[in-house]
Amino acid sequence: MKDLLFIEPDGSNREEVRRLGYRFVDLLVESASRAAERMPLNRDPGLIGEHYAPSEEGRDVDLLLDEIRGFLDRGMNPAHPGYMGHMDTLASAIGIFSDAIVSSLNNNMLAWEMSPVFSELEQRVMRWTCGLFGLGATPEDPDDSERRPVGHLVSGGTLANVTAMWVARNARGGSTMDEHGLFGQPPYVFFASENAHFSFRKAANLLGLGREGWVEIPAEDDGRVRVDAMAAAIRSARAAGKIPCAVVGVAGTTVTGSVDPLEEIAELAARERLWFHVDAAYGGAIAFSDRLRPRLAGIEHADSVTFNPQKWLFVPKTCASILFRDRHQPELHLREAFVYGMSNRTTQGRTRVNLGEWTLQGTRRVDVLKLYLTLEHFGRARLARMIERQIDLAQNFAGAIAACPELELLHHPELNIVCFRYRGVRTGANRIADNERLDFINTKIQERIEASGLGWLSLPHYRRRTILRAVILHPRCTEALLDRILDEVRSAGRELAGTL
Amino acid sequence: MKDLLFIEPDGSNREEVRRLGYRFVDLLVESASRAAERMPLNRDPGLIGEHYAPSEEGRDVDLLLDEIRGFLDRGMNPAHPGYMGHMDTLASAIGIFSDAIVSSLNNNMLAWEMSPVFSELEQRVMRWTCGLFGLGATPEDPDDSERRPVGHLVSGGTLANVTAMWVARNARGGSTMDEHGLFGQPPYVFFASENAHFSFRKAANLLGLGREGWVEIPAEDDGRVRVDAMAAAIRSARAAGKIPCAVVGVAGTTVTGSVDPLEEIAELAARERLWFHVDAAYGGAIAFSDRLRPRLAGIEHADSVTFNPQKWLFVPKTCASILFRDRHQPELHLREAFVYGMSNRTTQGRTRVNLGEWTLQGTRRVDVLKLYLTLEHFGRARLARMIERQIDLAQNFAGAIAACPELELLHHPELNIVCFRYRGVRTGANRIADNERLDFINTKIQERIEASGLGWLSLPHYRRRTILRAVILHPRCTEALLDRILDEVRSAGRELAGTL
Repeated sequence: MKDLLFIEPDGSNREEVRRLGYRFVDLLVESASRAAERMPLNRDPGLIGEHYAPSEEGRDVDLLLDEIRGFLDRGMNPAHPGYMGHMDTLASAIGIFSDAIVSSLNNNMLAWEMSPVFSELEQRVMRWTCGLFGLGATPEDPDDSERRPVGHLVSGGTLANVTAMWVARNARGGSTMDEHGLFGQPPYVFFASENAHFSFRKAANLLGLGREGWVEIPAEDDGRVRVDAMAAAIRSARAAGKIPCAVVGVAGTTVTGSVDPLEEIAELAARERLWFHVDAAYGGAIAFSDRLRPRLAGIEHADSVTFNPQKWLFVPKTCASILFRDRHQPELHLREAFVYGMSNRTTQGRTRVNLGEWTLQGTRRVDVLKLYLTLEHFGRARLARMIERQIDLAQNFAGAIAACPELELLHHPELNIVCFRYRGVRTGANRIADNERLDFINTKIQERIEASGLGWLSLPHYRRRTILRAVILHPRCTEALLDRILDEVRSAGRELAGTL
Repeated sequence: MKDLLFIEPDGSNREEVRRLGYRFVDLLVESASRAAERMPLNRDPGLIGEHYAPSEEGRDVDLLLDEIRGFLDRGMNPAHPGYMGHMDTLASAIGIFSDAIVSSLNNNMLAWEMSPVFSELEQRVMRWTCGLFGLGATPEDPDDSERRPVGHLVSGGTLANVTAMWVARNARGGSTMDEHGLFGQPPYVFFASENAHFSFRKAANLLGLGREGWVEIPAEDDGRVRVDAMAAAIRSARAAGKIPCAVVGVAGTTVTGSVDPLEEIAELAARERLWFHVDAAYGGAIAFSDRLRPRLAGIEHADSVTFNPQKWLFVPKTCASILFRDRHQPELHLREAFVYGMSNRTTQGRTRVNLGEWTLQGTRRVDVLKLYLTLEHFGRARLARMIERQIDLAQNFAGAIAACPELELLHHPELNIVCFRYRGVRTGANRIADNERLDFINTKIQERIEASGLGWLSLPHYRRRTILRAVILHPRCTEALLDRILDEVRSAGRELAGTL
């Protein structure tokens, strides 16, 4: 098929493009249905030469489909039930197929008149999500007031955290910030755990605050930030003439999935009159479960929340959100940057929001459709049960690790992430004390698991040690598979400890 | 179909999900094949209530497919051949279907080990794109040197412009900027046309420079920036103790598609030792044509270039790029913000770039596949001919407008955008002189064209007037359709001028 450039809007190639679509579906389904047979990670991308130039007159679709088939067998394979390296998941079937619909419509979330249905849908879904976290639900701040909560989707969690810190900085700086930026201002600082996502360091640089703009607060061994240290850091920043502008609580740290003490941080923020942001990019999903939601207590006081359905809600990338408890915050503090005068004729007696006026991105793909369809097809309660089950699996896995003398469980999992380490047998000649040697053994264990095809663990460097990390996020991961992986870890560890 | 949550990786529901995929394709193709029958813009999103909550136990796929069918008929319809309101286009068929593949693979451009094939592919395609603009092609700066050009995709052009200004600011600020940010620094400023995209104002705010950080330079009536005024603005900024850090040239302004005099701006930037950024988000596509490429002369001197395949290369949203002439620039000046210690074991004797270390976003969807497939299937020369034809259409349309005494052509189109205005007959009692009355008549003309279903023009406010704007971007737009729209504009204008 040489010339299938477009789906002709007059229907003249309807059957040809339908066949093309079916072929793509066949390719996709054949590959995804064999995901368990492939390695969780194939490190050989192959196929692509060092230099690239497109063809001059176009290449046949058949050749290109063959080439895609080659791509499908390489790369990261988070559809493998043993893939547990990072926070990547098997994507919902309905979300996958709907992304082709989104590309066909090619609407734009920049302005209402470029995405009327989806601008409305996104606001509805985001308002419900705000409610899930208790934002704006207090009697003094009723949902129907002018100050009701608002949120929007962004292309990845970094943009959500950056947006939150941006609004916090501008809320603190007021009209001076709009006009002169940071010129002539004392240093602005915000405070977050040493375990907070690296996007906060990125935000500090981007926003013009420099490395000193992000004060890293030490955490306990369990991964939770020390609120007393945070309070002390705020006091010394003020004493040094700096301007604290925000505190961050993390609900689901990157490495261990720890949840900071959000209520204490909320109290601190209120006392110090600081913006309170919660990065619940990962852990926010537990708000779907009535049983688990109390673990997020305090999040309802947040001024802003990051939450990524692209992680634990099984929505294909990208689908991340930034939520505000008070719509006036993004409206007031980003207005200078954002309002750009789209035609007002689109109002037609109703408030038609141009979402581009609140967003860093401006032009945005319609990410809300795959989120909406996934929510609707799965249902809230069914999602909650899946999330609960994964947390139970993680608890059991952690229990099994704790019961092995040669393994060290590094934290009691609050979510579905388990970090551990081979530490060797504790008695006799084989005792391993040297940290560097243990780092090396754990590195080799990770390679062995990867090579076995059984699963894939990541190997973060955490608190000065190289550790093994399992993110139990695949809906088809089972206790039996986790047992097999644990057996493999132990036998590899024993063997390596004996020979090294 | 109640339970089609995932494509099972063991193949156990292969045929069911295949049927689901086919149904999505049918829905998509049926809708896209009738795009010409629907209005270019349907302002009634309907269907969605004010309050939303997901179902508890999930809804049947059949119900959801019906609901999607309803969405498809509403919204912006850039697949209509008469849609010429904004820079939105009919998307390539292969690009549309490949987006489902991307969502199924669910790889992540954050790190090499999360997207091995696509991290490699993106770098190859971006390097070729850099070459298209002549970046890094000079004998002193050979392609194979350490300083070769580099680029990456971002989710929308705003992120590309923001990234460019971020690197420019940090390149100027050096290690002081890394450490202390803007604290204690004189005001930083960059210079761009009053017609530059509003993302530059956004960038100035985000980067902590405030409204004063973006100096708007006046443009000629033809839409091109006045380089003499830019030079004068740089001199007075220096005299006022400010720190100029970048100058911007626009290749394809938002409203009129004008191309700034890039060679003159490049000379100015070299003389003043400033970062030179070219926003070729829209106009960059003409680099595909040997005939048209000379209109971008000077772009080869740019330090950074924004170029959006999501516009004039028919790639579905989002697909935007930021290109750097020297890979050391993003490497050096974003390092503080970006490096976050992914495992190095992925190197395996080769340089495996974690693209997240250069990008604002971190986590990114795989946007390169739809770009690659569109380039490969269309071919460079065929894309060039399509682009040339659209520019020819715009020239002819502009000629027809210029030949109508009651219409005013507002600029000689450099690209495929034509701005014009009804101004009434020039003699006798019907003469219209009042600017506000003309604004109103042109607003009503735009409504009439929209209601006719013939096409859709946008209605920007430009140089203190409300005008009509045609972006001739649809590959099936014809001279005959443009003639009909022009007739409709004239008859609507005459009628309105007579009755108002």
